[in-house]
Amino acid sequence: MRRDEEKGGQGAASPGTVGSLEGHRAKIDAIDQRLVDLLAERQRVVEQIAELKKAHNLPAYHPAREENLISQRRRQGAEAGMDPDGVDELFRCILRQSRGKQNASLTRRSVRPGAVVLVVGGRGSMGGYLARWFVDSGYAVRILDREDWDRAAGLCSGIDLALVCVPIDVTASVVRMLCPLLPPDCLLADVTSVKEAPLRAMLEAHPGPVLGLHPLFGPTCSTMDKQIVVYIQGRDPDAGRWLLDQFSAWGNILLTAEAREHDDIMSVVQALRHFATFVFGRFLLRKDINLGRTLEFSSPIYRLEMGMVGRFFAQDPRLYAEIVFASEERRKLLEDFMRFWQEHAGMLARAEKERFTEEFRKVAAWFGPFSEQAMRESAFLMDRYIERF
Amino acid sequence: MRRDEEKGGQGAASPGTVGSLEGHRAKIDAIDQRLVDLLAERQRVVEQIAELKKAHNLPAYHPAREENLISQRRRQGAEAGMDPDGVDELFRCILRQSRGKQNASLTRRSVRPGAVVLVVGGRGSMGGYLARWFVDSGYAVRILDREDWDRAAGLCSGIDLALVCVPIDVTASVVRMLCPLLPPDCLLADVTSVKEAPLRAMLEAHPGPVLGLHPLFGPTCSTMDKQIVVYIQGRDPDAGRWLLDQFSAWGNILLTAEAREHDDIMSVVQALRHFATFVFGRFLLRKDINLGRTLEFSSPIYRLEMGMVGRFFAQDPRLYAEIVFASEERRKLLEDFMRFWQEHAGMLARAEKERFTEEFRKVAAWFGPFSEQAMRESAFLMDRYIERF
Repeated sequence: MRRDEEKGGQGAASPGTVGSLEGHRAKIDAIDQRLVDLLAERQRVVEQIAELKKAHNLPAYHPAREENLISQRRRQGAEAGMDPDGVDELFRCILRQSRGKQNASLTRRSVRPGAVVLVVGGRGSMGGYLARWFVDSGYAVRILDREDWDRAAGLCSGIDLALVCVPIDVTASVVRMLCPLLPPDCLLADVTSVKEAPLRAMLEAHPGPVLGLHPLFGPTCSTMDKQIVVYIQGRDPDAGRWLLDQFSAWGNILLTAEAREHDDIMSVVQALRHFATFVFGRFLLRKDINLGRTLEFSSPIYRLEMGMVGRFFAQDPRLYAEIVFASEERRKLLEDFMRFWQEHAGMLARAEKERFTEEFRKVAAWFGPFSEQAMRESAFLMDRYIERF
Repeated sequence: MRRDEEKGGQGAASPGTVGSLEGHRAKIDAIDQRLVDLLAERQRVVEQIAELKKAHNLPAYHPAREENLISQRRRQGAEAGMDPDGVDELFRCILRQSRGKQNASLTRRSVRPGAVVLVVGGRGSMGGYLARWFVDSGYAVRILDREDWDRAAGLCSGIDLALVCVPIDVTASVVRMLCPLLPPDCLLADVTSVKEAPLRAMLEAHPGPVLGLHPLFGPTCSTMDKQIVVYIQGRDPDAGRWLLDQFSAWGNILLTAEAREHDDIMSVVQALRHFATFVFGRFLLRKDINLGRTLEFSSPIYRLEMGMVGRFFAQDPRLYAEIVFASEERRKLLEDFMRFWQEHAGMLARAEKERFTEEFRKVAAWFGPFSEQAMRESAFLMDRYIERF
């Protein structure tokens, strides 16, 4: 954001100094731009080499050649007055990256090879994301999206799984349109972030196996490793087993619950947190806080907190509108929270430190051992954060 | 490490291919040579900047400028068809190296050997923490705490620095008791998290050099590396220079501001965030949420958010009461925020998704490039979190 923090000071820096600093920084920017140009050029040549090697069955890279390259650069750097270890580190980083690209294809094995999967809403972001995972694991994947309903019957014929990945507010109606076309023994599952209503709709409309899923992660995750998938059994658990096994094989952690409990928890975990963040962000805008300057004046924990706020607003508002207003219970919980704020009017008006301290202690006691755990976890993260940024 | 070099030996490569490969490799070598030339040139400019900053007592570097630089290079790289994360990694490596040079020789050394430091409130947690750092760096450290006032005159005699580390609400009175005992040319500094009132009190009570400090970190930090210390000049900047240099030598980043600006920013950065967390925690208790179960059903981002809430309630409520109710402006800002919640009554009562989406977009636009940065930073942390927990 602002880069002239020096100017804020005590006039130690004359305008001339600042000008000279700016000049030097412009030089740095120009050099950095040329560095990126060169790196891009390097990448193109590396790609040409990779093509050439692939066409002639040559090995992708050779360690000896890399060491040789690094030795030369170390020497050149040392002659130019640089720390050769630094040059070394940089070139290993460059070489690692040019290698990395080629290693991407992973262990995405299929637990039910050849099964046919229909992803309903497969051109949406979450649908498309899951479709790619099924494709990569060797499933036969078909997409049914808004524009495909005229050929839906054909798309549904002979499928083993229909996975519904559409927005919450249309899930029930999509399920009702879809079900008459499904093979009776086909597994029907959804990935909606509320579970009670969609599950009811699926059970009513489809006589075969039904499974409710809620992956607690979004389509921006490059890995499913250790990500959580909540599942709610609907009908015929044995017939749905393979799909749960598939998520396990992708690295997910599976958790089960009743639909009601799931929805109650998600009202807090998602709706309440999200709405609180929404109101906080709006207030920052209303007050037109100098965001850049507050970040400069931030401890890592505040940067981290603002990072979460920024992260929230970087995402699709329609998705959050769906989550926040997913059900009547949820809306009422948010209204309770809004009213709860008013209970603090007296404490604020009279600056009641004692009362604040007292209430604080009650919450701390209620949090119990989780607080200590939270301290450890967040201290760990803060250290990573400081190392990196 | 070794990748399919088996295939290498098969003689698939004709002499022509090998020739072509050699040509490409020569290109890579030429590019790499230019890369090192540029890096050496960059280092020279960085050294010039460091000289300039040193001569004018400017802080060595600022994270916000670095993030900005990295954002630009990421964009340039992406436009040139590169993986922006790769560019990011490389530039962090380059920046780390150019920083490393400046900080290496500095750790924990005393910039004013033999100076006598009086830590007022030195048996409190922050006072004790800072006292240890001074001791470790070879200063002569004395402690003046509540029970020591009868021998305060002796403790104050011949000191070079009086560092006031007492709670906000007693800072002014402690300063008034202390100042008549100080040598007139002694440096007087405080570490209170508000600055306007304490600085005024210090300037009124002490005729000598005065410096306001606000370390944006707590006594649980094992290192001061890259932690931010805000300083506000009071009187006679030259006489306070050594203390700022000492914080730099310990690895801190120094930032300056006017007292008023500092306090405004901290109202948002500290009081508003803290109070919002306080109300949120109280609401969880009020609803008697099943905390353990919500954590089981949590995506890493929610666990992280709850971790911050838990961390908050694991700390000393009196410290937070001081921060939250530190000034009248701050209290008013919190009241504004409380009232602001009521503006959402209509949106909630009528479940206005459109309105939510619209307001969301306004905030997102206002957040601007910070959102993208926040996504990257929090994604990085999330990965560390998943790796570890």
